[in-house]
Amino acid sequence: MRHAIAAALFLAATPLLAQTSVPDRLIAGELAGSQAYETLSHLTDEIGARPSGSRSAALAVRWTTERFRAWGISVRNEPVRVPHWVRGRESASIVSHNNQHLVLTAIGGSVSTPPQGITADVVEVGSFDELNNLRDKVKGRIVYYNNPMDMALVNARRSFEAYSRAVIFRAEGASRAAAYGAVAVLIRSVGSASLRTPHTGGMRYDAKVAKIPAAALTAEDAMLVHRLVGRGERVRIHLNLQTKVLPEVDSANVIAEIRGSEKPEEIVLIGGHLDSWDLGTGAIDDGSGVAMVMETMRLIHQSGLKPKRTIRCVLFMNEEFGLSGARAYFAAHKNEKHVAAIESDSGAAAPMGFTTTLKGDALTALEKQIAPLKAVGAATLDPQAETGADTSFLVEAGVPGFGFAPDPLHYFDYHHTPADTLDKVDPKELAQDSAAITGLTWILAEQ
Amino acid sequence: MRHAIAAALFLAATPLLAQTSVPDRLIAGELAGSQAYETLSHLTDEIGARPSGSRSAALAVRWTTERFRAWGISVRNEPVRVPHWVRGRESASIVSHNNQHLVLTAIGGSVSTPPQGITADVVEVGSFDELNNLRDKVKGRIVYYNNPMDMALVNARRSFEAYSRAVIFRAEGASRAAAYGAVAVLIRSVGSASLRTPHTGGMRYDAKVAKIPAAALTAEDAMLVHRLVGRGERVRIHLNLQTKVLPEVDSANVIAEIRGSEKPEEIVLIGGHLDSWDLGTGAIDDGSGVAMVMETMRLIHQSGLKPKRTIRCVLFMNEEFGLSGARAYFAAHKNEKHVAAIESDSGAAAPMGFTTTLKGDALTALEKQIAPLKAVGAATLDPQAETGADTSFLVEAGVPGFGFAPDPLHYFDYHHTPADTLDKVDPKELAQDSAAITGLTWILAEQ
Repeated sequence: MRHAIAAALFLAATPLLAQTSVPDRLIAGELAGSQAYETLSHLTDEIGARPSGSRSAALAVRWTTERFRAWGISVRNEPVRVPHWVRGRESASIVSHNNQHLVLTAIGGSVSTPPQGITADVVEVGSFDELNNLRDKVKGRIVYYNNPMDMALVNARRSFEAYSRAVIFRAEGASRAAAYGAVAVLIRSVGSASLRTPHTGGMRYDAKVAKIPAAALTAEDAMLVHRLVGRGERVRIHLNLQTKVLPEVDSANVIAEIRGSEKPEEIVLIGGHLDSWDLGTGAIDDGSGVAMVMETMRLIHQSGLKPKRTIRCVLFMNEEFGLSGARAYFAAHKNEKHVAAIESDSGAAAPMGFTTTLKGDALTALEKQIAPLKAVGAATLDPQAETGADTSFLVEAGVPGFGFAPDPLHYFDYHHTPADTLDKVDPKELAQDSAAITGLTWILAEQ
Repeated sequence: MRHAIAAALFLAATPLLAQTSVPDRLIAGELAGSQAYETLSHLTDEIGARPSGSRSAALAVRWTTERFRAWGISVRNEPVRVPHWVRGRESASIVSHNNQHLVLTAIGGSVSTPPQGITADVVEVGSFDELNNLRDKVKGRIVYYNNPMDMALVNARRSFEAYSRAVIFRAEGASRAAAYGAVAVLIRSVGSASLRTPHTGGMRYDAKVAKIPAAALTAEDAMLVHRLVGRGERVRIHLNLQTKVLPEVDSANVIAEIRGSEKPEEIVLIGGHLDSWDLGTGAIDDGSGVAMVMETMRLIHQSGLKPKRTIRCVLFMNEEFGLSGARAYFAAHKNEKHVAAIESDSGAAAPMGFTTTLKGDALTALEKQIAPLKAVGAATLDPQAETGADTSFLVEAGVPGFGFAPDPLHYFDYHHTPADTLDKVDPKELAQDSAAITGLTWILAEQ
């Protein structure tokens, strides 16, 4: 079976139909002989969690570089400075209620409490408006943001929206509460499932206010606090978070390239990120994205096919802790001609298609042309303003963006939690994902 | 609506039909005005985890006693000595594989490792036969029992069987491996769901061999070890479990009673257990069972109805850590005339019926008579050899046993884990459960 896939040359102002076929040895070859799961297994099982600045993140740079080299693919490392935040001991209890143990985790980047911890009464708010109404009444208190994900939105279309709505409290909650004198903040872990499972992630401190500790309670513990507050009871919590900010570390983006045969100066970029959070082993976020784009490179290289444009694979360092890899890449390469940027950072469930910044005729034309990607369930293009964090600087500069979109239904069950582990990935689905990305990459490199 | 429920007088050698109705104020009254969730909320949210020997277990004795008293029900405490095992710090890592962190929890009763921990190579076995074949090859090693629950059996009929089959390694694994010189054992957490969720439980040390530390890896960590071993890699683990055996504690069973109007010397016993494991708050194991049987007492007492037989509610202490409450009760009361023992210790999902030790004509007769319990989905009797741990001594002595059986499909998702928390219980289902137990209790007390 041969998939004949034609794509519009959407980059031209006037769409121009160009026939591009995706050779069988790419799609069917990947489904028959994928090595993506093997790649992912190494990243997760042998190396493990890869937080920015860690020894294991450095191991991941070295191993992926060697892997490209072993495949005979041109590869280099480009320098990236990364922060090195380290989680230490973390504990909490409800001293007002029989000193019950609470399960929580520090939000990434949180400052420590004093060594002896903080003990304070809890004030619950459900929104920043409520916080603003309370103002100085939160002074000296721990602010708890009651921010469950709207489970009615956790579906194939809107899971990421549900996440974005809830996660604002993780990102901005500490500084907003600190502005009114709060001593710490707690949020409800932003996830769609929990078995007492904490969910970490990034945050931003506002330089103008005091930095206060911030942690995410598991859904169960958050519901407990919410119930106790709801009964009108005084809730007093002891919180001890020990975190460390170590000196910045020299790390790297890993950049592999298959040079174009006709237009080598035109680049189709494909990327995922090498770093992960520290709690799990970063299987779905984003070991699988890395495995998919590495697999695309292996597959095209080993096929002996020569793409017209250059295909560049970027394994970004430090997506999770401030995008310094993405910034470094953009600073070094913004003047090169990127014709597309495909990012895979949404897990490894069965393919649904791609998000894209394309609009109008270019979108319509490409939509028609990728119909044959139905063979791996990836024939839809969903227009979105954002298609990925690591490629966002390129996209803001006008490069057409594509985000690989596997089924997101269970993504937030695992993402950023200790449960983001290899067993959550189905090898067959990962091969389908890799085939989908390979197909789109080939079309964009050839047309 | 009035439920007319007729039950056979199954205790007689020759079944004799006796009409027993369950007054509307019991079943419908419970569904309309249940206080069971309020009871459970106090046990779990205000008191929290109630491991044997703990301050919170003592609080639970005091609070439930006061609660019965506040309801105007005769109540007393009877002494029970309980062990006092305390979990301390616990950690592990795979030193052979980038020192990756493993999530695990000590099995209840496990001895400590030395303060600096143990580091040893892992030998995996899938059965005691495999262990016996390896014999001294496990000397100096950590034995990992690869014992996943058979998920094909996790259904309404066979979940408890699936659990029993897997849990034998938790119960006996340490001493069996120690007999061949192993230095520690790890098992896979015995549960039907995991988000990196450890599952604890009891174990037995054989007095004839050395006591070695025993812990349960989460399913994810167990699968990781299994994969690494399966790849033929040497797996070396560092394990540090700090546990303490504190002096035994004087605790109590809480015994409440509604005296029979015609045959006060004949006792229908209903029971659940007050203690819980330490990781969660013991909502489904067994706060809900306690709430149900307390609710049965409240409901019957407040109804003003006078049962012919005595209804005795026993809140057993220390089901989880050696059944000392059950033993103490049996020792003190074995010569009294128990006509039935109903235990609720299988969670709080929607009612399905009861297990029972009744057989033959007595079973058939009662099966017909409880048909009207269909109103709460509890009209089936499932003959089983065992109907509950706390009532097992009575049942072995010939007392007809009944085990309340809610839908077990998700029971082992939460049981013995940190996720055994109030949010897993649906208030409406808990009221149905309480109504079902009240109905059966009334029938047995009246007929």
